[in-house]
Amino acid sequence: MKKIISILSLLILIFSTNQLAFANTVISTRNIKVNNIKELNSAIKNSTAGDNIILVNGIWKDVQIKFYGNGTKENPITLRAETPGKVFIEGASDLKFGGNYLVVRDLHFRNGHTPSKAVVQFKINNDSIANNCKFTQCVIDEFTQPDRDVSDHWIEFWGRHNELSSCYITGKSNFGPTVRVLLDGNENVYNYHQIVNNYFGPRPRKGGPHGETIQIGDSETSMTPSYTKVYKNLFEHCNGEVEVISNKSNFNEYRNNVFFESEGSLVIRHGNYNIVDSNVFIGNDNSDQIGGIRVVNTGHWITNNYFYKINGEMFRSAISIMNGIPKSSLNRYNQVTDVVVAYNSFIDSKSPWQLSVGSNVSQSGVLPKSEIRSARPERVLFANNLIYNELPEMNPIVNFDKVDGVTFKNNFINNENKSEVKPAGLITKDFGVTKVSDDLFTLKENNTDLYHGFDFENITKDLFGNSRTATNNSVGAIVNPIKGNPILVDRSNYGTNWYEVNKPKAPANIISVSTSEELIKKLDKANSGDIILLKSGTYKLSSSLAINKEITIASSNKKSKAKLVFSSKKTAFEMQPKGNLILKDVILTGNKTQNAFTTLDKLMSKAYDISIENSEISNFKSVLEVSKGSFADNISVVNSKISDCENGFMLNKEKNDGGDYNAEFVTFTNSKFANIPGVVLDYYRGGYDESTIGGNLKMEGNTFTNCGKAQPENILIKNTGIVYVTIANNIFKNNPVKTIAILWGEKGQKPGKNTIENSGEFKVVQNLEMKLMY
Amino acid sequence: MKKIISILSLLILIFSTNQLAFANTVISTRNIKVNNIKELNSAIKNSTAGDNIILVNGIWKDVQIKFYGNGTKENPITLRAETPGKVFIEGASDLKFGGNYLVVRDLHFRNGHTPSKAVVQFKINNDSIANNCKFTQCVIDEFTQPDRDVSDHWIEFWGRHNELSSCYITGKSNFGPTVRVLLDGNENVYNYHQIVNNYFGPRPRKGGPHGETIQIGDSETSMTPSYTKVYKNLFEHCNGEVEVISNKSNFNEYRNNVFFESEGSLVIRHGNYNIVDSNVFIGNDNSDQIGGIRVVNTGHWITNNYFYKINGEMFRSAISIMNGIPKSSLNRYNQVTDVVVAYNSFIDSKSPWQLSVGSNVSQSGVLPKSEIRSARPERVLFANNLIYNELPEMNPIVNFDKVDGVTFKNNFINNENKSEVKPAGLITKDFGVTKVSDDLFTLKENNTDLYHGFDFENITKDLFGNSRTATNNSVGAIVNPIKGNPILVDRSNYGTNWYEVNKPKAPANIISVSTSEELIKKLDKANSGDIILLKSGTYKLSSSLAINKEITIASSNKKSKAKLVFSSKKTAFEMQPKGNLILKDVILTGNKTQNAFTTLDKLMSKAYDISIENSEISNFKSVLEVSKGSFADNISVVNSKISDCENGFMLNKEKNDGGDYNAEFVTFTNSKFANIPGVVLDYYRGGYDESTIGGNLKMEGNTFTNCGKAQPENILIKNTGIVYVTIANNIFKNNPVKTIAILWGEKGQKPGKNTIENSGEFKVVQNLEMKLMY
Repeated sequence: MKKIISILSLLILIFSTNQLAFANTVISTRNIKVNNIKELNSAIKNSTAGDNIILVNGIWKDVQIKFYGNGTKENPITLRAETPGKVFIEGASDLKFGGNYLVVRDLHFRNGHTPSKAVVQFKINNDSIANNCKFTQCVIDEFTQPDRDVSDHWIEFWGRHNELSSCYITGKSNFGPTVRVLLDGNENVYNYHQIVNNYFGPRPRKGGPHGETIQIGDSETSMTPSYTKVYKNLFEHCNGEVEVISNKSNFNEYRNNVFFESEGSLVIRHGNYNIVDSNVFIGNDNSDQIGGIRVVNTGHWITNNYFYKINGEMFRSAISIMNGIPKSSLNRYNQVTDVVVAYNSFIDSKSPWQLSVGSNVSQSGVLPKSEIRSARPERVLFANNLIYNELPEMNPIVNFDKVDGVTFKNNFINNENKSEVKPAGLITKDFGVTKVSDDLFTLKENNTDLYHGFDFENITKDLFGNSRTATNNSVGAIVNPIKGNPILVDRSNYGTNWYEVNKPKAPANIISVSTSEELIKKLDKANSGDIILLKSGTYKLSSSLAINKEITIASSNKKSKAKLVFSSKKTAFEMQPKGNLILKDVILTGNKTQNAFTTLDKLMSKAYDISIENSEISNFKSVLEVSKGSFADNISVVNSKISDCENGFMLNKEKNDGGDYNAEFVTFTNSKFANIPGVVLDYYRGGYDESTIGGNLKMEGNTFTNCGKAQPENILIKNTGIVYVTIANNIFKNNPVKTIAILWGEKGQKPGKNTIENSGEFKVVQNLEMKLMY
Repeated sequence: MKKIISILSLLILIFSTNQLAFANTVISTRNIKVNNIKELNSAIKNSTAGDNIILVNGIWKDVQIKFYGNGTKENPITLRAETPGKVFIEGASDLKFGGNYLVVRDLHFRNGHTPSKAVVQFKINNDSIANNCKFTQCVIDEFTQPDRDVSDHWIEFWGRHNELSSCYITGKSNFGPTVRVLLDGNENVYNYHQIVNNYFGPRPRKGGPHGETIQIGDSETSMTPSYTKVYKNLFEHCNGEVEVISNKSNFNEYRNNVFFESEGSLVIRHGNYNIVDSNVFIGNDNSDQIGGIRVVNTGHWITNNYFYKINGEMFRSAISIMNGIPKSSLNRYNQVTDVVVAYNSFIDSKSPWQLSVGSNVSQSGVLPKSEIRSARPERVLFANNLIYNELPEMNPIVNFDKVDGVTFKNNFINNENKSEVKPAGLITKDFGVTKVSDDLFTLKENNTDLYHGFDFENITKDLFGNSRTATNNSVGAIVNPIKGNPILVDRSNYGTNWYEVNKPKAPANIISVSTSEELIKKLDKANSGDIILLKSGTYKLSSSLAINKEITIASSNKKSKAKLVFSSKKTAFEMQPKGNLILKDVILTGNKTQNAFTTLDKLMSKAYDISIENSEISNFKSVLEVSKGSFADNISVVNSKISDCENGFMLNKEKNDGGDYNAEFVTFTNSKFANIPGVVLDYYRGGYDESTIGGNLKMEGNTFTNCGKAQPENILIKNTGIVYVTIANNIFKNNPVKTIAILWGEKGQKPGKNTIENSGEFKVVQNLEMKLMY
């Protein structure tokens, strides 16, 4: 018996020891408060595992923090704010990590930019790389370069096992992805980084490439194992470019993210064997720029995703499967093979499946062989997906090449399929749906008619994490019954626990003005959003009016418009970053020595807008002259008259031919253009690469008279390289030019119904010759 | 107390249950003996887990076996020979696996070839793929296609977790890698196949590409995770081509293999993150064709390897690090980055480290930009390696481009480094070595001056599996003390447990012959290796003599040579597969209507050899005419006289321009060539790709007189595209040609010291223009 008891004691001892081994080793922590960079550096230098280095509340300006040291898993070294939201990093500042188990939290970056190549960098140098470090509960808000052309990253991942979590990040308007994972060097592969629970707020349109929100790897490391996890993030209005996320490495996972009205796609641009599971893509009825998932390369699994009102086409369709280039070079397009698209739901989305996107065999005449995407998708499987459209949508599939490498199994659609491709595996069935909330539709009853493909047994959960079992499963992203009351977009789930993202906007002030002096003074002091009402009369202005906020300038009496007479030198209005000028019911006139609008020559860090409504503009040199680095989000002219200027709108200075351009949307509606001897509009986008698309020109209901007579190329409207162009229902009368505009046939451009009298003609060029970007 | 005992019982019960769970579940096995294919098919159809299907002893001819079923890990279904070594698979036969846990063992494939694309294939079709199946303890010996041009594989891997083990495989002479792992389709990636403990016996020279012994993946799947393990195999005289193993996928492991006198390298041609650890490469003093490891792409670890007498250069050097093509297309050459070469030993090897191999910037004139290898290795590390040469060898490093991306740390060499590159990390030290056996040298004392690189802590063992510890470690592949009495090449460790590979050779018979009839009869009946001695006199032969074995035909009296006078139609000697004709001290003469030697027109499945020694050949059309699919291993002419023939040796029929050619070695020594109005030699190799190299021409000490006068291109010797060419110490006299030969400057060819009189001249073309293969 004694022996038995001894054995028992021994067993108990073994158990206890094991338990001890699992318990955390708690060591004493020190709180070290620091008041300035010198104290901070000293604290870092002397820090040991478990230390809390606390930045006192206030503004920390022009600080370059090198945070190095070695914490442990249980006892990291933490650098944090005294009070979350009360420590501001401003000016020329950055933060670099080097070492192990370091945590930075609760900081607010604003009013500044990095003097280096990154705001936050997970290495100090190649001998001091971060591992197991964390940047969390921080805000980076418009911490953007003064010059848009200057490239940087905000978060630069190096090393392994680092984390960006619970941050609010918004307003990057310069070149360069917001978050970038770098994989050069064995120290930085198999990285298992985590990008989780962040709120990626609006990233403004950039006008060309290099405006991604996240980029993981690059074409040169596209064969490299990354294993980065991007999950539970919100991407709201991330409009930087066509790629919200640009995947360029292997074995990454994108799970449970919400893409809300972001004008781009999650693009598997390079790299293979990535997982895109349980993400939500939400668009709306008004935009065709909001995309879903674009696929290049091999072995991706796209499962359990939910698409709502995704109306993008081709590169921006809900699922865009590209054609590849045979034996593609490293930085171009590999063929798509071995991709599985299963258990996804497509609700009220337009032609959600687009195949062989980017096929350009017809362009062999203008492109070298190494640019021709003729390799069709191979061994691609669409199975157990659900397509539902409340209003009839008969073209679920758009194919840009023969479809011979895609298999369709047990997919269901509630409308008839009138696409060119009618696979037996896309079955029309009048199934019922339940509208759970505005954007959430589920099947009334599970549809259990499933295809059991290779490795499908590994798809064990649905969009909400509920189990898919042998007895309870369904096509589409969601299995009934749904637990709780799921909300697709709940902003409170993302970002920090201390920063209020959506602050209520102050109501606009209406400011009355009756003299030039008053106008100048009140414009200067106005808040963004204010409205300046001009009394009837003439306002003589010998200096430019600077616009650096949202300002409406309108006549108080529409019937007797105020007249602004400019003798200012260079320009009437100087558009500055974030300037948003709305002119209503006013008359602007110059003395032919200045332009009506110009941007700053440099440091146009952020976009500007000009809206001209029911107004008249005359006697200027150009209506608009811009600088190379400037970018307008919207230029619109409605019900207005532009006359007697040398040139019209000159959005033609961005000529690096790298796919960039000077304005996103240019809209002329129901307006009159007369006596402009130069070009009415010069809107330029140079550099050929199919995947950099942009520029939107709409001209409808306008009249053009006596314009273009001194234009050296004999052309009225220049829209070189702009991808989306509509010119319709206009009247062109007595304009002594040879060409009204050259349209790009390959992009579907054609002249609308215009009335043309003694004004030359439209020319359509099927394949525009452009400089190759790569 | 009772309670305690209960708890104890419970604990014991839990332990026992666990043990049960780990024990094999043994079910009753059935032995099903089958006598023919019908019974075999029926047995397969009815088989269940645990069954043994037994093929009765004897020859199974023209059998196509589809082996399908579902065994279990503990109870596979086995198909085996009644007695190992007594079941022969012959004729048009093959074997395909489909299902799980199937084992095939103890079969001997010979005297035949596959009628399909593979001898053994791990799938029946795309719906029946093998997983966890095994082909083991089998022999495949010369089971090669009758036509060398017909391509097949002997073992074709599909599915996952399949195994080729303990087999003896030799004699594949047709197109196509012996073993091929295929990765197209998700069912075949992450495969974890094992190729283990096999004896890969001689694979003859093929003359051009597609003669690999193992190829894993291809350029189109080079981004794909394979995870195949190749370990503990012997590769002996695997001379098929420059790549003994061609790696074209990711995450494969090559460990503990021995490469014995194999004329090629282990080539990481495509794919990344492969491991090459603890392999042995053995060459000899006589060959410069035996290689080591050639490296392309990213992230490989090359550790603990042992190189002995590897004298290959460039593509075949012990370690060959290539230059890449910037942004290479999928099937060309990616840049080498992030490669680690550590803890290797290089013993008595010539210039073992060759860097930027394949750099061809100088060839921009003849090659397109997409073929120019200008991207130098980047982030490559050589550390803790050992170079030892008994005789002074002052050029350990050969660089074909600037060396700016390679770091050298703590490498040691016993000679002075007089290479162009003299890194501080290659340290000359007069260390002592111990000669353990003929090919095994170790340091007298461990050299513990080590570099501790990133992830080096994962290199925990040495070549022999002994631990590398903090207290006991060393540069080089081997750490002292060595345990036991290691032998680098122990053939008994490889292949089956029943087949005798190196059977003793029967002694040669010497057969005396005095009449034509006797010659014809005895030649027919002779064994391979026999010697036929001709009495002096004249032998009139109106039919051709077929040579399909090794035969020496010699005069019994050297001073009065026998004379063979041919009136046969097409040829004097007809060279058939495996024909090896040694002519000594004989006179051959024709009547100008036939050739002296021709091959078969078709079905030249294996190579042939011709050796002409101290003999005379005259009055034929051509001396040698070959067919397209034929291949000579050696053609040699020594101390002989060739005269009064229309043409000489015509090795010029392989014109597919895919890197193939008709003969490996052509050697003319101390011989006379006279009165040949056509070309003396036409030796052709077409198709440009740097990595397919071959053709060896040596002409030394010969005299050429009155040749070439009717040659339409005015040339005496044609050696187009042949890579290794030596023409030295010859006399060219009164040959009315413009050009003696055109030499390829880029390959280091230049005319030796020849005496030229009234015979035109040599031309050197630096960069030969050739058809691109890709």
